[in-house]
Amino acid sequence: MPDVKTLGAQQRKAALDALKTRYQEFQARKMNLDMTRGKPCPEQLDLSAGLMDCLGRKDFKAIDGSDCRNYGGLDGLPEAKHLFAEYLEVSPEELIIGGNSSLSLMHDAMTWAFIFGAAKGSAPWSAQAPVTFLCPSPGYDRHFAICEHLGIRMTPVELKGDGPDMDAVETLVASEAGIKGIWCVPKYSNPTGEVYSDEVVERLARMPAKASDFRILWDNAYAVHHLGAGPARLADILRACRTAGRPERALVFGSTSKISFAGSGLSFMAGSAANMEWARGHLGFQTIGPDKLNQRRHVVFFKDMAGIENHMQKHAAILKPKFDAVQEVLERELAGKGIAEWTRPVGGYFTTINTWDGCARRVVKMAADAGVKLTPAGSTYPNKKDPRDRNIRIAPSFPSVADIRIAMEVLAVCVEIASLEKTE
Amino acid sequence: MPDVKTLGAQQRKAALDALKTRYQEFQARKMNLDMTRGKPCPEQLDLSAGLMDCLGRKDFKAIDGSDCRNYGGLDGLPEAKHLFAEYLEVSPEELIIGGNSSLSLMHDAMTWAFIFGAAKGSAPWSAQAPVTFLCPSPGYDRHFAICEHLGIRMTPVELKGDGPDMDAVETLVASEAGIKGIWCVPKYSNPTGEVYSDEVVERLARMPAKASDFRILWDNAYAVHHLGAGPARLADILRACRTAGRPERALVFGSTSKISFAGSGLSFMAGSAANMEWARGHLGFQTIGPDKLNQRRHVVFFKDMAGIENHMQKHAAILKPKFDAVQEVLERELAGKGIAEWTRPVGGYFTTINTWDGCARRVVKMAADAGVKLTPAGSTYPNKKDPRDRNIRIAPSFPSVADIRIAMEVLAVCVEIASLEKTE
Repeated sequence: MPDVKTLGAQQRKAALDALKTRYQEFQARKMNLDMTRGKPCPEQLDLSAGLMDCLGRKDFKAIDGSDCRNYGGLDGLPEAKHLFAEYLEVSPEELIIGGNSSLSLMHDAMTWAFIFGAAKGSAPWSAQAPVTFLCPSPGYDRHFAICEHLGIRMTPVELKGDGPDMDAVETLVASEAGIKGIWCVPKYSNPTGEVYSDEVVERLARMPAKASDFRILWDNAYAVHHLGAGPARLADILRACRTAGRPERALVFGSTSKISFAGSGLSFMAGSAANMEWARGHLGFQTIGPDKLNQRRHVVFFKDMAGIENHMQKHAAILKPKFDAVQEVLERELAGKGIAEWTRPVGGYFTTINTWDGCARRVVKMAADAGVKLTPAGSTYPNKKDPRDRNIRIAPSFPSVADIRIAMEVLAVCVEIASLEKTE
Repeated sequence: MPDVKTLGAQQRKAALDALKTRYQEFQARKMNLDMTRGKPCPEQLDLSAGLMDCLGRKDFKAIDGSDCRNYGGLDGLPEAKHLFAEYLEVSPEELIIGGNSSLSLMHDAMTWAFIFGAAKGSAPWSAQAPVTFLCPSPGYDRHFAICEHLGIRMTPVELKGDGPDMDAVETLVASEAGIKGIWCVPKYSNPTGEVYSDEVVERLARMPAKASDFRILWDNAYAVHHLGAGPARLADILRACRTAGRPERALVFGSTSKISFAGSGLSFMAGSAANMEWARGHLGFQTIGPDKLNQRRHVVFFKDMAGIENHMQKHAAILKPKFDAVQEVLERELAGKGIAEWTRPVGGYFTTINTWDGCARRVVKMAADAGVKLTPAGSTYPNKKDPRDRNIRIAPSFPSVADIRIAMEVLAVCVEIASLEKTE
């Protein structure tokens, strides 16, 4: 099918009629498909079944002889720190292991900076209001929600396919002392799937910042989450910051939520020795220590980095056909029509589609009315406001391939209807 | 032995010489005993060995059919809420289940009140500085540390054996709008072991407060932690507050840290429907949900409230001889000498001893020099300052009965030396 802009009035009407018939057929099927969140599917969770029973009644001792069932160990078991330091490409001294949620660790870091200051002796962000964060967008709604909750302003920055628009970032960060940080998902970014280039990482570490307490919140959520071809390379942000003479600039986060169990995994925070001392200093007021039995389970189950990598190939084998189905249907339904562009990620949990300006909300609403729930339009932007109302996040991990095909067909038909109606 | 104050100079010198010989003998043994923290001992942890393997590879489904391995369920599994609501004597709607640490939930509640306000629409405590908390003392050092960290002032209030001095509490709370709360460990209090009387609970709920956002932080950490005679009765603070027309006044906390595993238990927060909505409203920004597999483990292992009660009898059977050893040695060594008073708790994790004023730090230092580590003197008071320098917390749960006997002998000898030196 040709570009819809080249259609004559009659062709357009005929196309629209046909599409509306298809849409009504979808509605008649009374489907209930949920593509809203990046949840692993049951088959993925089954890959970690061994985590359920890898510890027997007597397997509660850590390598250092400590009893994992008891209190203590604020920042993690030695063997867990060893394994997951390698995972995050940091040293064990640069790592803290938290509970089951890296979002909690990010929220903690933001809250500590807000109430107490981003470093020892530095003024609290709350005393330096208004504070602003740069938000490469489209991005992860829960990052933006933390800022919104704390009353931190957000300035969207465009993503260029290899990370944020660094010309814009450098200009803003160099000129405004109120800009205290930037949210980054540097690898298989949520939702665009892009990987930050070496140059972007380098420039983020090197750029002069007007605020001495400027922080990069580096959410490396998908460090090993490729779709089969092995993980893309990502430059080492901590080393880049160290080399640039700004060792405290970056705080790195990660988790096994999409490696082991989404609700019962491990979370990590990493950074310079001074930053980790800062973090432990605050963490010690809010907990006696994390769940060490779960750390022990993960070490026994995965053993080493090769174990994790091997495990991720199994995830990829499940996820790849789902991501392929998204591409296949979008290609078949929308290619060449000039009404949408979408990403072709090689890792991560999302595909994202840009419609014509002003169509995304209408498309998501229409899809919902036909039984296909998508992530609400706008939620990939700060304050849930997509300025061009065009970005839609597609989360294909949970549904079956068959359901994804139908959902993508529904989505494509809705995009086409919304676009054709725009040309009226 | 008679009251030391009745001793003549020669008797005093002879006694002191004998004590110093005993002390040197202790030193010569180069002991290394740790009585600093209320940690369960390995035999207690073994009681919950079944938690390690009660779930098989396929036992990941909750009663409502949801997959405990995946994301979701911000405030807890239905079956876990059912069981632990009964445990805390609240309704499931009044309960939120957190991670492995009730300290984290208390820290959360304090931080939310500090940054956002103690209720929807109420001003943040940080905007109403200076804020003060009443601290019944001696009390739990980690409660006081949260206040210290947030810059909240602390006013100590005396404990009377059945809870805080309510005349003092009522006067203070009625007259100062800056007093925003009170920390309470209402049952087998840390470290005095006392249980709040019905009258105290009633008065806490009823008293007029100048601050409309006044909160009772009710840390019911030892709700079922008796030493064999069954739990003491404690009046229902939430009901008392409801009846008094102040349903939002109390926030209740608890955990299984000293029921199942100290490092891998479950934590709880309870309160009015409005307070729980407030809590979920903030919690939703910091986590996608707690570890539901661990909740499921606890439900499968304990089954019901009778299961928990039966389990606590086994804890009591281990702990009672340890608490008895403390009493026996203190009685034998110090009774009738007029130099110390100590508690005789029927539950909880601590015994506490008051020396003469000005002796506690010296005693703890001397004991440490003889290889017996006690909780630092002062740490049972706000800002780690015991105004009379007399209170010492004894934590007998972890060491063996034999070690407790020696440690208590060392402690007693140090108390006696410090007292006799005072009479010089």
